[in-house]
Amino acid sequence: MTHPATPPRQQQFASDNYAGMCPNAARWFQEATASGHEPAYGDDGWTQRVSEALRELFQTDCDIYFVFNGTAANSLALASLCQSYHSVICTSVAHIETDECGGPEFFSNGSKLLVAEADSAAGRLGKLTPDAVEAMVTKRSDIHYPKPKVVSLTQATELGTVYTVEEVRAIAAIAKRRHLKVHMDGARFANAVATLGCQPSDITWRAGVDVLCFGGTKNGLPVGEAVVFFDRALSVDFAWRVKQAGQLASKMRFISAPWLGLLENDTWLANARHANAMAQRLHAAIRDLAGVQVLHEPRANAVFARLPPPAVTALRAKGWRFYEFIAGGGCRFMCAWDTTPESVDAFAADIAAALPG
Amino acid sequence: MTHPATPPRQQQFASDNYAGMCPNAARWFQEATASGHEPAYGDDGWTQRVSEALRELFQTDCDIYFVFNGTAANSLALASLCQSYHSVICTSVAHIETDECGGPEFFSNGSKLLVAEADSAAGRLGKLTPDAVEAMVTKRSDIHYPKPKVVSLTQATELGTVYTVEEVRAIAAIAKRRHLKVHMDGARFANAVATLGCQPSDITWRAGVDVLCFGGTKNGLPVGEAVVFFDRALSVDFAWRVKQAGQLASKMRFISAPWLGLLENDTWLANARHANAMAQRLHAAIRDLAGVQVLHEPRANAVFARLPPPAVTALRAKGWRFYEFIAGGGCRFMCAWDTTPESVDAFAADIAAALPG
Amino acid sequence: MTHPATPPRQQQFASDNYAGMCPNAARWFQEATASGHEPAYGDDGWTQRVSEALRELFQTDCDIYFVFNGTAANSLALASLCQSYHSVICTSVAHIETDECGGPEFFSNGSKLLVAEADSAAGRLGKLTPDAVEAMVTKRSDIHYPKPKVVSLTQATELGTVYTVEEVRAIAAIAKRRHLKVHMDGARFANAVATLGCQPSDITWRAGVDVLCFGGTKNGLPVGEAVVFFDRALSVDFAWRVKQAGQLASKMRFISAPWLGLLENDTWLANARHANAMAQRLHAAIRDLAGVQVLHEPRANAVFARLPPPAVTALRAKGWRFYEFIAGGGCRFMCAWDTTPESVDAFAADIAAALPG
Amino acid sequence: MTHPATPPRQQQFASDNYAGMCPNAARWFQEATASGHEPAYGDDGWTQRVSEALRELFQTDCDIYFVFNGTAANSLALASLCQSYHSVICTSVAHIETDECGGPEFFSNGSKLLVAEADSAAGRLGKLTPDAVEAMVTKRSDIHYPKPKVVSLTQATELGTVYTVEEVRAIAAIAKRRHLKVHMDGARFANAVATLGCQPSDITWRAGVDVLCFGGTKNGLPVGEAVVFFDRALSVDFAWRVKQAGQLASKMRFISAPWLGLLENDTWLANARHANAMAQRLHAAIRDLAGVQVLHEPRANAVFARLPPPAVTALRAKGWRFYEFIAGGGCRFMCAWDTTPESVDAFAADIAAALPG
Repeated sequence: MTHPATPPRQQQFASDNYAGMCPNAARWFQEATASGHEPAYGDDGWTQRVSEALRELFQTDCDIYFVFNGTAANSLALASLCQSYHSVICTSVAHIETDECGGPEFFSNGSKLLVAEADSAAGRLGKLTPDAVEAMVTKRSDIHYPKPKVVSLTQATELGTVYTVEEVRAIAAIAKRRHLKVHMDGARFANAVATLGCQPSDITWRAGVDVLCFGGTKNGLPVGEAVVFFDRALSVDFAWRVKQAGQLASKMRFISAPWLGLLENDTWLANARHANAMAQRLHAAIRDLAGVQVLHEPRANAVFARLPPPAVTALRAKGWRFYEFIAGGGCRFMCAWDTTPESVDAFAADIAAALPG
Repeated sequence: MTHPATPPRQQQFASDNYAGMCPNAARWFQEATASGHEPAYGDDGWTQRVSEALRELFQTDCDIYFVFNGTAANSLALASLCQSYHSVICTSVAHIETDECGGPEFFSNGSKLLVAEADSAAGRLGKLTPDAVEAMVTKRSDIHYPKPKVVSLTQATELGTVYTVEEVRAIAAIAKRRHLKVHMDGARFANAVATLGCQPSDITWRAGVDVLCFGGTKNGLPVGEAVVFFDRALSVDFAWRVKQAGQLASKMRFISAPWLGLLENDTWLANARHANAMAQRLHAAIRDLAGVQVLHEPRANAVFARLPPPAVTALRAKGWRFYEFIAGGGCRFMCAWDTTPESVDAFAADIAAALPG
Repeated sequence: MTHPATPPRQQQFASDNYAGMCPNAARWFQEATASGHEPAYGDDGWTQRVSEALRELFQTDCDIYFVFNGTAANSLALASLCQSYHSVICTSVAHIETDECGGPEFFSNGSKLLVAEADSAAGRLGKLTPDAVEAMVTKRSDIHYPKPKVVSLTQATELGTVYTVEEVRAIAAIAKRRHLKVHMDGARFANAVATLGCQPSDITWRAGVDVLCFGGTKNGLPVGEAVVFFDRALSVDFAWRVKQAGQLASKMRFISAPWLGLLENDTWLANARHANAMAQRLHAAIRDLAGVQVLHEPRANAVFARLPPPAVTALRAKGWRFYEFIAGGGCRFMCAWDTTPESVDAFAADIAAALPG
Repeated sequence: MTHPATPPRQQQFASDNYAGMCPNAARWFQEATASGHEPAYGDDGWTQRVSEALRELFQTDCDIYFVFNGTAANSLALASLCQSYHSVICTSVAHIETDECGGPEFFSNGSKLLVAEADSAAGRLGKLTPDAVEAMVTKRSDIHYPKPKVVSLTQATELGTVYTVEEVRAIAAIAKRRHLKVHMDGARFANAVATLGCQPSDITWRAGVDVLCFGGTKNGLPVGEAVVFFDRALSVDFAWRVKQAGQLASKMRFISAPWLGLLENDTWLANARHANAMAQRLHAAIRDLAGVQVLHEPRANAVFARLPPPAVTALRAKGWRFYEFIAGGGCRFMCAWDTTPESVDAFAADIAAALPG
């Protein structure tokens, strides 16, 4: 077997997990590699340190667990909030509903996801509203239907939009009144904080969020997410749940140490700001092109736009990769912590060139 | 936050997952880090390459999936072999029975583990026998008891012993006759191959094994195991199972690329041979010490021995870490791919010094 | 404690399980009561006899299991057709989707129900169509979404309509082409057969149905449904599944013997015909009343109609019970095997009297 | 199909669920049959009445649910007391361990049953002891093993013995100290009360039991058990659990009304006393026979005895049915509410005749 150096590949706009590990994370990963023998299962020094650092970041004494990916983080968090005969209110575009292959239903042994009505201005931006939550929770109360127990928000949303602090608070208020727990899928939590310019606490526990799945992978880690319980009563025996569910890393330091790289000097925020800025750059470059219909103002690190089908074909032929979610040319262009201005400009130029006329 | 260089720690004999990442794995991890954008979820080049390399290693066209850890590998493999009302025959010391927090029961939605009688020479060495399997499978056949569907072997065993090729074959033969599938927990598969000096195929598919969980972590990876289906009919839709169960890495290359480091130049085998040799070295150094009772000849990378309790206390006081599994001084001393002869010698010297008289 | 004779209550149109046990079923229940000691768990003579009688009725050598209720019948049947990472295509009004509290998801450990588009003439009648199935099965084929594995039809539907033989055949044909199994929720199967005037086999195995849940309770039993596997390969080890799931009656004869009462002299069909006729009688009596809008022609034993809200209130005040499913006065009036013409006429008269003008 | 009167069969000693429905239960079943239309799912008058009567019997304001059988009662009760990563301490002969086909593991999504050491005087009588519970709960406390959360007692035990009030109290005291909940499998609860001559409350909530599964079937019902929560905080949303798990009877009155027959005039206690007396009668008749070795004094409605294998064969040849649980001739002879003295005498005479010499 040979060991050739692979040349860096063309940057893509398909997903922010096409990007690799950011240099700061890599530096700590390297240190974990060099350290020799370490206690397993999280009894090492890095894991303790990063937990402390996260508590500091969130300005509260929260409970923190590290798991391997977002499906696991969301599914285990939801399973800790509801029993099999309960249900979770979310949007129709929620990742837990559309892209985790029934993970939440599996880990909870059957909890149903209740998709809230999307036919409103907020719904079209991928957001829940207090009214939509209220409508779902009051629709049925008989024992023949799973009892709503959780509201799940994605922040930033799957459509590249961001809940304001007030929006989170309003939903959490309804949730509390209806005895629902509030889960936040924060696969792109950093991007939302970067956009809002707020403290992480402002859109989590201070606004009424009980559990946050804080995404590390899309922000620059090789692997790993953090489950952050602000309501510590909800994390009783969660360590056993993580172990049983195959989410406890034996060599935990390789999962936890790179988090120190994200957290030192607010690298996580810098990474997110950069990705967001690249989305703005792309948006600015294409929004006025004839034939391009931007679906909504980008607020995080993605641009959603409709292109003529021949343009899509032409772009693919040039090697560009991106997802089409919506019939008739709706495309998602996703930027990452490492997306370069040059790549954005090249992509925008190719979009312009691909358009008719 | 400061970024100090942590000094390498004292080597330990507690677990082979105290060891870090081996240099060859690290080299490929580094390449995956440097490569820039890569398709996610396994559509990258490394994942394809390592799958090919594993098929070559096993000399057959097997189906291969990468998951995060051993609990997940074993639990998902077993879940693919049996339904909730089926059962799995294993030993009383099997890792799936004693150390996965009910993971197999969870992923299979309730399959029961049937612990075979350990009161035999083989049983005391942590091994199943054809007779023990036969006894379990014929004990009950009514619908009030979970129907046996799988035999699970651990190779090398949890007691540091190794099934011979003939032993695996004999158990698999009974299994086939009784319509049981054969699962091999290979968390230390490499150590068994190193001991036997056989081909990997000799103790797997050629001997009748249907699915192998091939351990990478203990062999020198930072994270990750491979599930290898020799009977490809058993892996139908397994990719969906992996995804739903939160075991599909988005940035898969960081999980798969280091495997190339293990596989090139048979590093996996060299790593295992070294660990085994260190166990032999430790065994040779302590077996004749008065007060030490080695429980059985080490065949893989662990020594099991009884020490006087004061000696155990004295060793712990000197900072040595190891597990005691058995009442009255039974200790497990585990060696890893990176255990140095110097560490072994220092540990053996401290054992000698800790003994009375 | 006293033991007063309760006077028979006013008949209701809320549900066909408000009705009790039909006389023929009661006669056999009584015989099971009188017989003294009998082997448990289905090894009694009645259970064998009724299985034989059902095979005769369906004109094929099917596998038959008796369970306690419809939720269990449907959930266990579906669980035998799909794994946790698979999905089931059904309508938005399917009982498995709306009224089993997540039972299918629970028993299958997470299988998702995919609700097919209802916006078509058939959809508005509570029916799936080949096109709707095709659309669902081709919508996604990636591993991030549960793979469709089953189509579930309700016959008669939850809206009191009935699939024709041709409609069942057409859906089953698409299912076969797409490698989906076909499940039929037959809680009111008898009512559908009565309407179609066909053989039970015509709308089941001859049309491509793999498993039927044949409802006994609504047809006149005190408790119990039959799960009928036409594809016997799908029922492997189903007896273990039933036992583990808490659905195996110890004194099975009390569940199975009354089925003999339904089957002898085609009582099941007579019961269904009577219930259907009562729905027709009610329909005829109210369809032309000003202020009543019948939603669609009744084909089984229910009439769906919109009434002015004050009329609904007035009817409830007179002690009538029925369900309102649809905002603005949509009501379901359900007839049973024991609904009397006098009750229908009295109810229709009260409806007429409750209407304005 | 003909409708012959089946002659009452020879009484058997295989199981107390070979017996049918007792006359008092039958009388109320008949009333439920005769009453015409009734609300479904437990909103009928009988269900309310029997719940009240049970609260009176237990002298406390407990929460009561009716399910179809013992597997469901035990499994749902246990699932409400523990999560998938918890465990349940029980004996090696516990019905939940040996005869429910993994039902508890299934409904709890993976909770492990921990079998306590049986090698003690109490263990040989099928009983847990405080020491055995303490040993299990202190054996492991790491996250790699399911955390003990419940102690499950069977009262009367599977070996026909009975916990005294003091024994239950002592186990419950340890349980409380170790934060374990106490579940009682009361499939033959009535037989235990009859033996002890105590109030039902004395061996349940007054002694520290949290949840009782009160067996109706073996006591004379056609189908049905009651789950009685003395700690009402544990039954939150249990109605949803019952529905989802396929255990909510639509025509609930047929399940609940017969309970009124058991409860009026303490029929349940009379039935149990009779069954117990028949076991005493059989015991008296055979205990001194040469060749018969009674294993222990019967305390409930079963006699356990070793017979020479040829005697077992001879008895079977005469048509007698009973179970052999233990190698070498250990037989279980079970009496029921309807076992006649004549049957006991005939069976004892045949045993005597079957013995050598």
